[in-house]
Amino acid sequence: MSNAIDFYFDFSSPYGYFASTRIDHLAARYDRKVNWHPLLLGAVFKTTGGVPLPMVPLKGEYAYRDFERSARFYGIPYQRPPAFPLATQLAARAMLWVRQAHGERKAVEFAQAVYRAYFVDGSNIADTDAIAAIAGKTGLDTAAVIDGANSAPVKEQLKADVDAAMSRGVFGSPFVIVDGEPFWGFDRFDQLEAFLKYGKI
Amino acid sequence: MSNAIDFYFDFSSPYGYFASTRIDHLAARYDRKVNWHPLLLGAVFKTTGGVPLPMVPLKGEYAYRDFERSARFYGIPYQRPPAFPLATQLAARAMLWVRQAHGERKAVEFAQAVYRAYFVDGSNIADTDAIAAIAGKTGLDTAAVIDGANSAPVKEQLKADVDAAMSRGVFGSPFVIVDGEPFWGFDRFDQLEAFLKYGKI
Repeated sequence: MSNAIDFYFDFSSPYGYFASTRIDHLAARYDRKVNWHPLLLGAVFKTTGGVPLPMVPLKGEYAYRDFERSARFYGIPYQRPPAFPLATQLAARAMLWVRQAHGERKAVEFAQAVYRAYFVDGSNIADTDAIAAIAGKTGLDTAAVIDGANSAPVKEQLKADVDAAMSRGVFGSPFVIVDGEPFWGFDRFDQLEAFLKYGKI
Repeated sequence: MSNAIDFYFDFSSPYGYFASTRIDHLAARYDRKVNWHPLLLGAVFKTTGGVPLPMVPLKGEYAYRDFERSARFYGIPYQRPPAFPLATQLAARAMLWVRQAHGERKAVEFAQAVYRAYFVDGSNIADTDAIAAIAGKTGLDTAAVIDGANSAPVKEQLKADVDAAMSRGVFGSPFVIVDGEPFWGFDRFDQLEAFLKYGKI
């Protein structure tokens, strides 16, 4: 099998969510595995000077419209969340712990449930209760997930993962790297697919 | 005929250039006219706090790669210009003057020639000689174009046009507004086409 696809995303990123609904199917069509890497865009923006889209004058209003229109265009369920953007440390650390305890498949199932809870059901995923509820619905021990997410080693690991991502040039969500080729944005998935198909663009 | 498409672009924007190679054909397929509006992103960024892509850490390096890869993906001739980004006031004002003196069709021909000179032939379009040469090749009186571009009324008009664009929510290049619906980026031309085809998304 060819190299895995590295898929970076922040749980508060609508375009990351859109990408999360497609990446595994896309990869499977070209016989690739996907490694899912939760990011903290807040930490990344400290380096790049980035600002969450909705906070930029003019761009902010447009961004909300683009989230909704893009969701309709691609046929992806989406409801504008009541709180946006929000802190995603807890969700990201919970996912890392689920991977350690239960492996990649369960971690991806959990990540997809977090994204749906936030962008379809309007849960406040910065909240411990919300993450516990998602863990429960995913068939996990809720207390174990929360304890694991708040443990020092998992906190350290997330920090190290985000640093490693930035050192590879990752600066946004979604961000994909495959065979050394970087793709930023769900709107580059057409180019990503061409790259997977032809090995170059 | 339906409402015209308003097409906003900065002459220093690679994605604006890509869009300029497609917008008239796209519009014609749906029986729409295009009004071309040169922008000054520098003035817009004063309002939005925006920064030219190549100057953002991490994002900057990626941006150059994305310009080239997108050009290949869409089959659009592109050479990374020696000077980038650069001031586009003179090019924008020259275009406004050509429109006043010779009408929309000639102004668009001139604009396309400016984009090609910059993104294919590597001319420094901030330079008076370069704009004069482009005007000459487009069959215009070079001295008249330069004098017109530097006249007070044309300077005032460009300022007013940029303010009017921002008051409509324009914040980047390319930016399209049709029937009140805004589209930012060449990577939204698929959604723009769907909107033209179905009247909604």
